[in-house]
Amino acid sequence: MADVKNSKQELVKLMKEFLRIAPDLYLPAISIDPVVFSYHNGKLNVLVVRFAGSSGFGLPGGFVKKNEDIDAAALRILQEMTGINNIYLEQFYTSGKVSRYDKKVIRNLFIKRGLELPANNWMEQRFVSVCYYALVDAEKVMLKSMPFIEAFKWMDVKKLPRLSYDHNDIIGKAVSRLQSDLDNKLVEFKLMDETFTMKDLQKLYEIVYQKKMVRTNFQRRILNLGVLERLDKKYNGKSHKAPYLYRFARAK
Amino acid sequence: MADVKNSKQELVKLMKEFLRIAPDLYLPAISIDPVVFSYHNGKLNVLVVRFAGSSGFGLPGGFVKKNEDIDAAALRILQEMTGINNIYLEQFYTSGKVSRYDKKVIRNLFIKRGLELPANNWMEQRFVSVCYYALVDAEKVMLKSMPFIEAFKWMDVKKLPRLSYDHNDIIGKAVSRLQSDLDNKLVEFKLMDETFTMKDLQKLYEIVYQKKMVRTNFQRRILNLGVLERLDKKYNGKSHKAPYLYRFARAK
Repeated sequence: MADVKNSKQELVKLMKEFLRIAPDLYLPAISIDPVVFSYHNGKLNVLVVRFAGSSGFGLPGGFVKKNEDIDAAALRILQEMTGINNIYLEQFYTSGKVSRYDKKVIRNLFIKRGLELPANNWMEQRFVSVCYYALVDAEKVMLKSMPFIEAFKWMDVKKLPRLSYDHNDIIGKAVSRLQSDLDNKLVEFKLMDETFTMKDLQKLYEIVYQKKMVRTNFQRRILNLGVLERLDKKYNGKSHKAPYLYRFARAK
Repeated sequence: MADVKNSKQELVKLMKEFLRIAPDLYLPAISIDPVVFSYHNGKLNVLVVRFAGSSGFGLPGGFVKKNEDIDAAALRILQEMTGINNIYLEQFYTSGKVSRYDKKVIRNLFIKRGLELPANNWMEQRFVSVCYYALVDAEKVMLKSMPFIEAFKWMDVKKLPRLSYDHNDIIGKAVSRLQSDLDNKLVEFKLMDETFTMKDLQKLYEIVYQKKMVRTNFQRRILNLGVLERLDKKYNGKSHKAPYLYRFARAK
């Protein structure tokens, strides 16, 4: 977890520059919100950030460049905001209620930093947000200091505070989608090591579904998916009770 | 199916008026595309329209008003373009590749109608499209004449011609999503009569999945969903071989 404080003056300069270039650089009315889950320490966590000048946390969102595919924008934004790159992002929802946009929140944020906010500036338009989710191993990602970000935090999805905009609602939808997608996305998410035990995999499922599962039922369910290959046990001098190892089948 | 030809002069007037008011009325850069499936005559069809002045067909899309939720916009657009209202629309995808936008297509469309097209007009911006799907009984919907629409058509999803923009791709994604959603959306879609036979339901599934299913397997799968109630057979003087009737269980 990083925690960076920019000097107030530097930040005001950055924000002014951003407001100046944004209308030429980005598509209007559209934002992107990446929901990055991790499953470290037996918990399902979600990555939130505190933007410079803001008192609360929110998703590490951003905007779409005028000549950029939205999928590419999602990857770039996540990289720019958190340093995370090269992960599998799945588009799952577009949030477009009028009420999700709160002009007052943005005004207060800027005014608190001593920034005079011109009327009809980039940040005060209504945004429809295209949302993506990812599931990563928190130990394998590195979060980097970014100019607009004061702090990163992995928060337990069960204990989220009130986040910016409608981000609590977006994260709730992402959890449901992650659960219903997990069987089909297991291989794509690249969450397991090259080989793993049934117990390793069950642990992942228990974290994502946030409940304990019965070993025999779980095993039947997973084997029915037809994506696993069981490796032959090699005699290694240890007890025969060593668990079977599995890997994902190549074909499919 | 309706087929309405506006006089050329009237159409030019309508289009000019549209281009004039659109920037104040609608959110920029965002469009909505409703994919409406029907399952009449044993086929899975999709509703496409021919816009005035266009030679090809496309989805009955439109734009989001500045003070309108995107879900509400989808319902309104479908109503304005086709007359269909009061149906369950499910958001399933947002299409945002740069390449989906083809300036030439729009220019040709307008120029063919004798319309001088100002630079940077509403229709020539890049649109990111939020896509919704619905499944309806074609016999229960009425298509109405609309000013911008020259023709409606229910087309077999297996035999689609090249449609406007990336609409073939969007429809393909909608078919996949409809198939994977069907078990969970059966009740919401309100496709069946108050009571129905297992055979009626199997027919619906076979159309959506575009393949024959084995009766016993189908029955087991559907009963496992736990959403059906079997009614007691009433003696009606006919053969005892009359099939059981089902209805959707109230609780859930």
